[in-house]
Amino acid sequence: MSVRRSSVEALLASQELDREVLVKGWVRTRRGNKYVQFIAVNDGSTINNLQVVADAEKFPEETLKDVATGACVAVRGTLVASQGKGQSVEIQASEIEVLGKADPETYPLQKKGHSLEFLREIAHLRPRTNTFGAVLRLRHALAFAVHQYFNDRGFFYVHTPIITGSDAEGAGQMFRVTTLPDQNPPLNEQGQVDYKEDFFGKATNLTVSGQLEGEVAAMALGKVYTFGPTFRAENSNTARHLAEFWMIEPEMAFYELEDNMGLAEDFLKYLVRYALEKCPADLQFLNDQYDKELLGRLQFIIDNDFQRLTYTEAVEILKSAKQKFEFPVDWGTDLQSEHERYLVEKHFEKPVILTNYPKDIKAFYMKLDEDGRTVRAMDVLFPGIGEIIGGSQREENLEKLQQRMQEMHVPEEELWWYLDLRRFGSAPHSGFGLGFERLVLFVTGMANIRDVIPFPRFPKNAEF
Amino acid sequence: MSVRRSSVEALLASQELDREVLVKGWVRTRRGNKYVQFIAVNDGSTINNLQVVADAEKFPEETLKDVATGACVAVRGTLVASQGKGQSVEIQASEIEVLGKADPETYPLQKKGHSLEFLREIAHLRPRTNTFGAVLRLRHALAFAVHQYFNDRGFFYVHTPIITGSDAEGAGQMFRVTTLPDQNPPLNEQGQVDYKEDFFGKATNLTVSGQLEGEVAAMALGKVYTFGPTFRAENSNTARHLAEFWMIEPEMAFYELEDNMGLAEDFLKYLVRYALEKCPADLQFLNDQYDKELLGRLQFIIDNDFQRLTYTEAVEILKSAKQKFEFPVDWGTDLQSEHERYLVEKHFEKPVILTNYPKDIKAFYMKLDEDGRTVRAMDVLFPGIGEIIGGSQREENLEKLQQRMQEMHVPEEELWWYLDLRRFGSAPHSGFGLGFERLVLFVTGMANIRDVIPFPRFPKNAEF
Repeated sequence: MSVRRSSVEALLASQELDREVLVKGWVRTRRGNKYVQFIAVNDGSTINNLQVVADAEKFPEETLKDVATGACVAVRGTLVASQGKGQSVEIQASEIEVLGKADPETYPLQKKGHSLEFLREIAHLRPRTNTFGAVLRLRHALAFAVHQYFNDRGFFYVHTPIITGSDAEGAGQMFRVTTLPDQNPPLNEQGQVDYKEDFFGKATNLTVSGQLEGEVAAMALGKVYTFGPTFRAENSNTARHLAEFWMIEPEMAFYELEDNMGLAEDFLKYLVRYALEKCPADLQFLNDQYDKELLGRLQFIIDNDFQRLTYTEAVEILKSAKQKFEFPVDWGTDLQSEHERYLVEKHFEKPVILTNYPKDIKAFYMKLDEDGRTVRAMDVLFPGIGEIIGGSQREENLEKLQQRMQEMHVPEEELWWYLDLRRFGSAPHSGFGLGFERLVLFVTGMANIRDVIPFPRFPKNAEF
Repeated sequence: MSVRRSSVEALLASQELDREVLVKGWVRTRRGNKYVQFIAVNDGSTINNLQVVADAEKFPEETLKDVATGACVAVRGTLVASQGKGQSVEIQASEIEVLGKADPETYPLQKKGHSLEFLREIAHLRPRTNTFGAVLRLRHALAFAVHQYFNDRGFFYVHTPIITGSDAEGAGQMFRVTTLPDQNPPLNEQGQVDYKEDFFGKATNLTVSGQLEGEVAAMALGKVYTFGPTFRAENSNTARHLAEFWMIEPEMAFYELEDNMGLAEDFLKYLVRYALEKCPADLQFLNDQYDKELLGRLQFIIDNDFQRLTYTEAVEILKSAKQKFEFPVDWGTDLQSEHERYLVEKHFEKPVILTNYPKDIKAFYMKLDEDGRTVRAMDVLFPGIGEIIGGSQREENLEKLQQRMQEMHVPEEELWWYLDLRRFGSAPHSGFGLGFERLVLFVTGMANIRDVIPFPRFPKNAEF
């Protein structure tokens, strides 16, 4: 037979019945009786399984013994209307080949639900579960939507460096990258490790952000974005932190803070709408299984205009709130997640964009406001997770930028090239950063960020 | 005036004339006489400049002194049909504002052409040149095409880890990633560095390939691809090597070698066709400026079926070739670029896919052929650059894979999870790797790989 293989997704959507088909995939379950066996086959193309019906005459139970949960099979047969509930079509099997067995005694993924903690330890098998299949398909859809959104709007994707000689980006502790011997490295005259002897001729680290290099590109190409891995060597063992995660950082020449806010709101709504349109079955599953408010929360993002207000106004609201907060609020302090969520979930009941934060709690590159106390920062706050986007208009004035760098002890020698952007053809420009896993966490409704990236990296864990 | 800013690209394509417009961008040149000045403005949206015409009555030369090469300007005026050659429309300026100056005494990018070597030293400014604008727009287009191609065909994008605890991937020397003190690190009882004390509790490196983790995803989701940075700590100071580069690695369950070849050929043709369709002006510029055969070579890829033959057949052809090679050819040796190019450019005059290489010169995970001497490898060879894609069907048989690992001294303990893929629900599967910079090099016709990535990383260089 030379019939071509079809995906489960294609067959489930097919209107063309009573034809010969071939499907390959993994057995999720097999059940039945002495007359007929039902085999649920999944090939990853969709969360839904294709039901294979095997007549006991042709396939007695003993010949099907290897058709166990986790086994890989090729099934030929006729696509027919299903008599059972839960699916519209099924395959009446004429031939079943086991391509790869899965011994029920040792295969870790049996029918029963496993804890997410256990599944993390078998991250090489968990993509075969409904949950992680759904999460990974959503992750793909969101990543594609990012590229689609920017490409359609004339942005250029730039790959900023992963290995960086600068540690001035100021966003956190860094991982060292080296090829020097791990014992007795060469020393310089001061008795320190002589990084001139290292691969790059200087000390190098893994990047914490592509923003500064993104600005380089924006000041030539106009509108750009990065989408790449970033790293934090912070010893944070929480459900919110990863040592390795992916960031999206658009950067736009000629955008002021208002334009930046407009872009962030439009972008987030687009991403959420895209997920709802492209992955309804996966989202429904996650909603039913993990988080009954998920679909409602996604709709909430699309339906509401984001409330825009200044940090100063927000502090006033929080100070006069009846709610007791764990952390006190005062002008000049950074807001905690509890404050952000109060604003979004209780006070405004819509997503919020806070702007014009005190300069002392924000990065050196943010544009100083006229009052000299605040900067043109913006944070987008979402229900459930608090800050999802952080961004700003950038300081385009050379002298003001140099002064901020001095105040915040950022060495000019390292960032000579960044200063050159203000020396030659400077322009107002803005950008923001979206942590991709934060987005996937929000859209999937998962509770732990280690469950929305295929192979999480965190303290004491770099398995796989 | 509240007219909205338009991009140079949009204005140049506009049919709607005699209207008020606003454009912002960087001055490429200014020339003229005492009656009129012509200012070429580029905003990165296209390689083409928009001509701004400034009447001397309104803008005498002394008021335009800051409108110098490299300066950033905002221009309001009327979009009119151009009287001059080289463009169909131009702006008759009513208002010119200098947003950021560029002192002609110090701005490194003056009108005259600069060497690519010099531009590499100012990688933060080179995107403002025609050449690097073209290269970066093409790089974007190709990256987007990669995602578009796979998304349209039901592949899922997976982010494989950058920091890896494994050094068994076998593709080259690796960079160490650590947070241990660089002097006097903790030692274990054997007197070696105690990596249990390191951030991840083990020695970690930067990945050289996402393939093995890609296989994990393929054995659950069916068809996947990676597109991420990979690293080689090789001290290669050549025009072909980077220490940090981006790789695309599709991996497909149920694909055998033939399917893999079909996908590789279709994919490469799609990418080249996409570039020709979306970036004609950038390609024309590169063709005219650097490589008169570029467009012809791209068309050559689209027009020809890729010639498929075995390594063994290729060796026979090379041994009987009249051409003198620098390196001798014998069955069992790896082919050199000169051999690959001979096959493509002289013998077949079409792209070539070589298959079934001797097992000893290929990686442990490639599926052994029946003869026990060769493996189901495939290399796609292109004119000018030789190998552009390397791939294979993977060994799906547990015992055969274990034996190959033993023969090649790949430790099983480290890859227990990779072996599990063969233990549980194994399936025939295949994949390949495409070095993204190799692709961009081929499509742009640039000669040095350092010129097709925004911030190249190579021995003794991690600037910016």
